Amino acid sequence: MTTQQLINQIKTKKSFLCVGLDVDLNKIPKHLLELEDPIFEFNKAIIDATHDLAVSYKPNTAFYEAYGIKGWISLQKTINYINEKHPEIFTIADAKRGDIGNTSSMYAKAFFEDLNFDSVTVAPYMGKDSVEPFLAFENKHTIMLALTSNEGAFDFQTLKVDGKELYKQVLETSKTWKNSENLMYVVGATKAEYFTEIRKIVPDSFLLVPGVGAQGGSLSEVCKYGMNANVGLLINSSRAIIYASNGTDFAEKAREEALKIQQEMEVIIIRI
Amino acid sequence: MTTQQLINQIKTKKSFLCVGLDVDLNKIPKHLLELEDPIFEFNKAIIDATHDLAVSYKPNTAFYEAYGIKGWISLQKTINYINEKHPEIFTIADAKRGDIGNTSSMYAKAFFEDLNFDSVTVAPYMGKDSVEPFLAFENKHTIMLALTSNEGAFDFQTLKVDGKELYKQVLETSKTWKNSENLMYVVGATKAEYFTEIRKIVPDSFLLVPGVGAQGGSLSEVCKYGMNANVGLLINSSRAIIYASNGTDFAEKAREEALKIQQEMEVIIIRI
Repeated sequence: MTTQQLINQIKTKKSFLCVGLDVDLNKIPKHLLELEDPIFEFNKAIIDATHDLAVSYKPNTAFYEAYGIKGWISLQKTINYINEKHPEIFTIADAKRGDIGNTSSMYAKAFFEDLNFDSVTVAPYMGKDSVEPFLAFENKHTIMLALTSNEGAFDFQTLKVDGKELYKQVLETSKTWKNSENLMYVVGATKAEYFTEIRKIVPDSFLLVPGVGAQGGSLSEVCKYGMNANVGLLINSSRAIIYASNGTDFAEKAREEALKIQQEMEVIIIRI
Repeated sequence: MTTQQLINQIKTKKSFLCVGLDVDLNKIPKHLLELEDPIFEFNKAIIDATHDLAVSYKPNTAFYEAYGIKGWISLQKTINYINEKHPEIFTIADAKRGDIGNTSSMYAKAFFEDLNFDSVTVAPYMGKDSVEPFLAFENKHTIMLALTSNEGAFDFQTLKVDGKELYKQVLETSKTWKNSENLMYVVGATKAEYFTEIRKIVPDSFLLVPGVGAQGGSLSEVCKYGMNANVGLLINSSRAIIYASNGTDFAEKAREEALKIQQEMEVIIIRI
């Protein structure tokens, strides 16, 4: 998917919502556990109920790997279902991968070719040659961790290197990499005041923003400081939507929560 | 596996060799491609030929994920084979994972419980709460990236934070985390002169050392600066061993290469 196709979808749906498909068998409705593939059935119901309100789905690979081969099959079925039924959706493999060059190429192959995701999240610690193999794929997007939403973000990401926080150095350095136009960045919503500084470095890039809702970030604050002329934001919500109910009405309640967020987003989009 | 069991194995085998099982279907002997699971058959032959010379096997997950569900099955069969036939071997899932706390717990479950590896590699960028869920597992080991063997290591890892290189800060900070005695570290062999500094910070920890052989690092240099009283090193070699031949004699040639390294190691171990 091209960036322009993503922007068009945002304008059509008046939404920049990404739904995180972080499926934990201990949290989904009990009646699904009797089915052959509860994770896929859960995702399918969530997707069917929210696909007109969301522009992106983001399965976090950890939640699938935890169930071994079965989990990997559920992940494959989920991405295939989205690609077949809703090809306009921007898909994100939240995998936070990164390794030496030839190994990162294998990860890129896994997520961009074998699973056919539009994008994958990567970690920056190993530098340029750990990320460029992902960037080499045309019309695929590489979403690099910059400033994350967790407490541990302050352990290293905000340390000053040469008088400048590490996450800013990561942003600046990454702009010099080959095919850097295929980069997007993860920036946590719990740190809304940082968006002003980040937009000085990457004014045009899309930012994937976790941490709204369950983790405490504010949508309006993030938009105030982080939005650009093309919106430039994908706001992720996982638990607040997918676990809105754990009864048989889970999909309906998920839709209600997604609709609330989409309506807030519509008001904001109309203003820009 | 306890650290003491690993040390005992090193002393018995007079080896601290880790064989990297980074299996690329384009590089393995052609005759294996006719079999149902070429990756597993390749690994099985390599393991059968080298298990008395190596103390550890390290499949890099990227090479398995690139083949989707089939690849994940090959990985599962490989780790099961090692655990059943050679339970003394220290197994490493080279996965370089890391995410927010509840998500890292799912990764820990995937590698420590579902697949039953002894250890997993993790990335430090997201800080304490992204690593502690791994450390919570008793007799399991978390191998954190400190200073990697690739060129991109110089992008961020060696930048100075408060007058000290980032990788040193990562080492020092990680020592304050809960259950930090379960930490080991990745330190690339291509930077042997750094080991002196690293040993000042983590004198007792095991270091997993990639980059000997194909990537140009020297075994004797690494041992000179990096070894401690319990050896404290696991030297990884992947391509030089597993792709020593791509004919029908591949396992035999892999053994010859592993034996060369083990014999070098034996000479070094006898000295300490």
